[in-house]
Amino acid sequence: MEKKKWSELWLSYDKVTELGGSQTLTIEGFDAENRIIKSAAKELERGFNGFAKISFVRESSVAKEGYEIAGADSKITVKASDENGILYGVFALLRNLAMGVSIESVNEKSSPSNPLRMMNHWDNMDGSIERGYSGESFFFENDDIIINDRTVDYARLMASIGINAIAINNVNVKGAATYLITDRFFDKVKKLQDIFADYGIKLYLTINFASPIEIGGFDTCDPLDETVISWWKDKAKEVFEKLPGIGGFLVKADSEGRPGPFTYGRTQADGANMLADAVEPFGGIIIWRCFVYNCTQDWRDHKTDRARAGYDYFKEFDGAYRDNVILQIKNGPMDFQIREPVSPLLGGLTKTNQILEVQIAQEYTGHQIDLCYLIPMFKEVLDFHTYCKEGADTVADIISGKTMGNKNAGFAAVINTGNDYNWTGNDLAAANLYGFGRLAFDMSLSSEEIAREWVSLTYHMDKKSEDTLVDMLLNSREIYEKYTSPLGIGWMVTPNTHYGPSVDGYEYSRWGTYHRADHHAIGVDRSDKGTGYAQQYYKKNADMFNDPDTCPEELLLFFHRIPYTYKLKSGQTLIQYIYDSHFEGAKQAKELMEKWESLKGAVPEDVFERVMERFKLQVENANEWRDQINSYFFRKSDIPDEKGRKIY
Amino acid sequence: MEKKKWSELWLSYDKVTELGGSQTLTIEGFDAENRIIKSAAKELERGFNGFAKISFVRESSVAKEGYEIAGADSKITVKASDENGILYGVFALLRNLAMGVSIESVNEKSSPSNPLRMMNHWDNMDGSIERGYSGESFFFENDDIIINDRTVDYARLMASIGINAIAINNVNVKGAATYLITDRFFDKVKKLQDIFADYGIKLYLTINFASPIEIGGFDTCDPLDETVISWWKDKAKEVFEKLPGIGGFLVKADSEGRPGPFTYGRTQADGANMLADAVEPFGGIIIWRCFVYNCTQDWRDHKTDRARAGYDYFKEFDGAYRDNVILQIKNGPMDFQIREPVSPLLGGLTKTNQILEVQIAQEYTGHQIDLCYLIPMFKEVLDFHTYCKEGADTVADIISGKTMGNKNAGFAAVINTGNDYNWTGNDLAAANLYGFGRLAFDMSLSSEEIAREWVSLTYHMDKKSEDTLVDMLLNSREIYEKYTSPLGIGWMVTPNTHYGPSVDGYEYSRWGTYHRADHHAIGVDRSDKGTGYAQQYYKKNADMFNDPDTCPEELLLFFHRIPYTYKLKSGQTLIQYIYDSHFEGAKQAKELMEKWESLKGAVPEDVFERVMERFKLQVENANEWRDQINSYFFRKSDIPDEKGRKIY
Repeated sequence: MEKKKWSELWLSYDKVTELGGSQTLTIEGFDAENRIIKSAAKELERGFNGFAKISFVRESSVAKEGYEIAGADSKITVKASDENGILYGVFALLRNLAMGVSIESVNEKSSPSNPLRMMNHWDNMDGSIERGYSGESFFFENDDIIINDRTVDYARLMASIGINAIAINNVNVKGAATYLITDRFFDKVKKLQDIFADYGIKLYLTINFASPIEIGGFDTCDPLDETVISWWKDKAKEVFEKLPGIGGFLVKADSEGRPGPFTYGRTQADGANMLADAVEPFGGIIIWRCFVYNCTQDWRDHKTDRARAGYDYFKEFDGAYRDNVILQIKNGPMDFQIREPVSPLLGGLTKTNQILEVQIAQEYTGHQIDLCYLIPMFKEVLDFHTYCKEGADTVADIISGKTMGNKNAGFAAVINTGNDYNWTGNDLAAANLYGFGRLAFDMSLSSEEIAREWVSLTYHMDKKSEDTLVDMLLNSREIYEKYTSPLGIGWMVTPNTHYGPSVDGYEYSRWGTYHRADHHAIGVDRSDKGTGYAQQYYKKNADMFNDPDTCPEELLLFFHRIPYTYKLKSGQTLIQYIYDSHFEGAKQAKELMEKWESLKGAVPEDVFERVMERFKLQVENANEWRDQINSYFFRKSDIPDEKGRKIY
Repeated sequence: MEKKKWSELWLSYDKVTELGGSQTLTIEGFDAENRIIKSAAKELERGFNGFAKISFVRESSVAKEGYEIAGADSKITVKASDENGILYGVFALLRNLAMGVSIESVNEKSSPSNPLRMMNHWDNMDGSIERGYSGESFFFENDDIIINDRTVDYARLMASIGINAIAINNVNVKGAATYLITDRFFDKVKKLQDIFADYGIKLYLTINFASPIEIGGFDTCDPLDETVISWWKDKAKEVFEKLPGIGGFLVKADSEGRPGPFTYGRTQADGANMLADAVEPFGGIIIWRCFVYNCTQDWRDHKTDRARAGYDYFKEFDGAYRDNVILQIKNGPMDFQIREPVSPLLGGLTKTNQILEVQIAQEYTGHQIDLCYLIPMFKEVLDFHTYCKEGADTVADIISGKTMGNKNAGFAAVINTGNDYNWTGNDLAAANLYGFGRLAFDMSLSSEEIAREWVSLTYHMDKKSEDTLVDMLLNSREIYEKYTSPLGIGWMVTPNTHYGPSVDGYEYSRWGTYHRADHHAIGVDRSDKGTGYAQQYYKKNADMFNDPDTCPEELLLFFHRIPYTYKLKSGQTLIQYIYDSHFEGAKQAKELMEKWESLKGAVPEDVFERVMERFKLQVENANEWRDQINSYFFRKSDIPDEKGRKIY
């Protein structure tokens, strides 16, 4: 067989197909010709080669998109109440078998934690990917749409981890992408959509709020203007006719230079609801991003606090949104830093549909050069108690619909893929791709369980090697955090690229991202004596964050301005903690590389080399962070390292 | 007459042509059909409309390219020993008349201070201009050469200020520009060259040292390789046959990633001499830039000093260069900062031809947004005593050929033009364009004389307005220096763009440009106790720079590491000087804008608006510099402003 131009990732099925044998498939209660059932059958055929009788059985008691798989005496039953459930059941079956579960022992019952499990692509139609670290887009090139076998494999990969919604184009909609909702592209979008539909995935398009101007030739896109409203109604009708089954639209408005309702003195709710009304007759959904803040702040302005912006803009209109609007909220109030508190909007809104947005594209977390397994971070967010409702107050409760009993809710990630052979630049970054999907499907899975699944499915390693790699993944986020910006302060990155250190890089900028370090202290006071950001949380959290003594130490510099001589709970001063953590983080980055070295032979040679190349860069990067951060703070504070290590 | 798409700048001749009348021209001792004589006659016809009998007279006693003009009783004589002299005499005549000198009073005798008076374009063949702030190239677009009426006007402008050599393409030779020395472009380069030749200007091409590889298909460009030597000999023959009269080649080698002899373990002399031998049979010249330094320095490395690099690389081979090689030396040892000491190579080399290189493109000096009249800076450089030879030791002596009695010497500027209507983005930046040419021709002119000429020729203002504008120009460099980086420290600019402040922007970089500010002090010790850079000068200067007490204070932080509490001669501490100069500089920037406001009506409306727009930006820029610099040093030093002004 010809070598493929892209990897199969965790769907390589080597182990499963080694079984040898034949199967019969019986289908009860489903249409064997249904596109998803056909995909499930095809996947089974492709992945499983054991002796078995398999049945797909419709069982209405199984939860929506859930499955029950059970094996006994060379017989396997996959039960579900809908087609997606069957497909997910088949992938679960194959995963079990690939991980060494015998046919007789297969026994799994699962249903998705979140109604919407979504990937957001930031792919541009010229083929570039905003914050992409894995090559170019596999959806677009030269302002056109690409459809080929890779598209199918992509859909298979996504379905295998339970993804059921994908927005294919960048939230910053520019150039040709504005015309995705016109005749120019409908035919090709439809083809793409059909491929997704085969795998139970709804396609979403990100739209340009200024479309009435750019496509329609109007001089306004005011959401309360009757002609604008009418244009969108017509446009929605056209889109849903040409692309039946499309999920809806994703919108980034009034954000970082994007047009939006604020231009016309309207509210975010005005904008979102107008679009929601337009798509409502067709069952469409509007996903509206909450990443709205003043991106032309004067650094001299100490009153404005970007962290407050989301809550300030959106809380007031809680309950004012249509049922088919979902607000998409980033995990933290800033922007995907390695450590942020959970956004106070999550749970702060109690009458509005919410999607949690995370970023597996490693924009601020190492560009898929540095190893940074993000699932532990996501778990922290999901487990966070907001205190919005007794007994159902975690972020997981909110986005799953448990808190409000809503079904337009879920979990979205900015994806980390591109057209590199291995999809994710760093082969190990696929752990985040796999992990996000699995976690979105089953939020009860632990970071370790997910890591182990991914390692096992991808590399089929001996136990010792698997333990090593799982351990590397599990520690990687903490290591990255140690050698980069300390205790939640964030933003000490090279402007624009967001890789590598630049302590003052965003300090005198317009982006609202300041550490305000001087000779004595560092940090922005976000307590009730400062910007009051901490007060945006429910009282218990507000009190906790408000006081440096009770504030979780890993977030100390997010919430407080702290002198370098402040004693942490460990007994270290703040400045000594900065030195210690940076020396330690860089050392541990080197240890990660050494551990990878020890896996030579346990992973394919090409994987080994690609990843090793990146570990070398990571070690350089960690050393650069260590030295710049330590030098910066030593030069400023004039307090020497207690241990007398080299600071420049 | 149709409005032109570009301004005539100082050649508008309005005043001169108002005279009305007729002339007769007689030509003695020159061929009336000579291309330069024809240009001179045409220029006269175009610019002068008074009653007069004019004679061009060959007079062998006049110095090369010099002229004598004298008027009496409606008779004007232009004497010269060569055609360029006649052309320059005509431009001088027109200048005199435009400035209000009567025909009877015209009486000027001048000859060029410098043999070579050169412009270096950093124009790329895709039409972009490296460090261009005035639109796109008027020589190139879409990898091709542009030739039109503007080309002719450009040549006239250059000849009118005495420029006799122009390198048309960027020193970073990339892409199509590598092929300027091939058949692909000879025809068009020849046309350009012919236009230049009409105005006594020799065309130079910047070449790619790796041409034997890129054009020749070799795998080496080792300057001692016989096949490489032979390739260049053939190439030189071809170029000089196809482009007879071309001046020669300009080369940036082994610099900022450019290929060069170091790649092959050869010296700069090996490289330059190999090329010099190739062009020597045709009277060609090799201009070899000395901008060679390690641009991948580790910021942690305190031993390497970029300021030393030029001298360290080139001094050793003083005298080893062919007679037709000229080393082109930037005015300072770093890179066109607003304040640098004079490069120790100037005069440090005593047996090598030298060209002084300055930059009128305002890369580090305000992007032709901020007003920065650079002639005072150039005058300081020219007047600097190197002590290389008693009685003939200034930089002016060296580059004019006085010190060494050589004729391959001169003065070059990186030009500030583009295809903007007004050529220089900021209309007032044309003062640097005009000023550089005039100064290169006559180094005895003062900054004020030059400013006054330019203002008078360009705007024909009333005396009060002229005084205001001349005053603005004369103070502008000092103002810019005040609000940007202090006392010669340099480099506190936004990386890459080089506009606006970023105090640490180059501090942790690979570019060898460090201020090393900590809580106590700032600066790199370049004395004999530090990097030893000061010792590269002749003893008298070395001693002066070596000691903070005798070091000129404006260069204090270039040569020394100084505590913030150090007392300057004014009695101010260093830190207080930083605060004071920045508050003052920003205030004076605002005053410049107010003065411009007062010139409304004295300059054409379009000029007024274009410049006013830039002054507004300059004031913003100056405020930003003031606040960032002051905040940075206050936060670091913890020493408050004595005057209690606002620091953030």
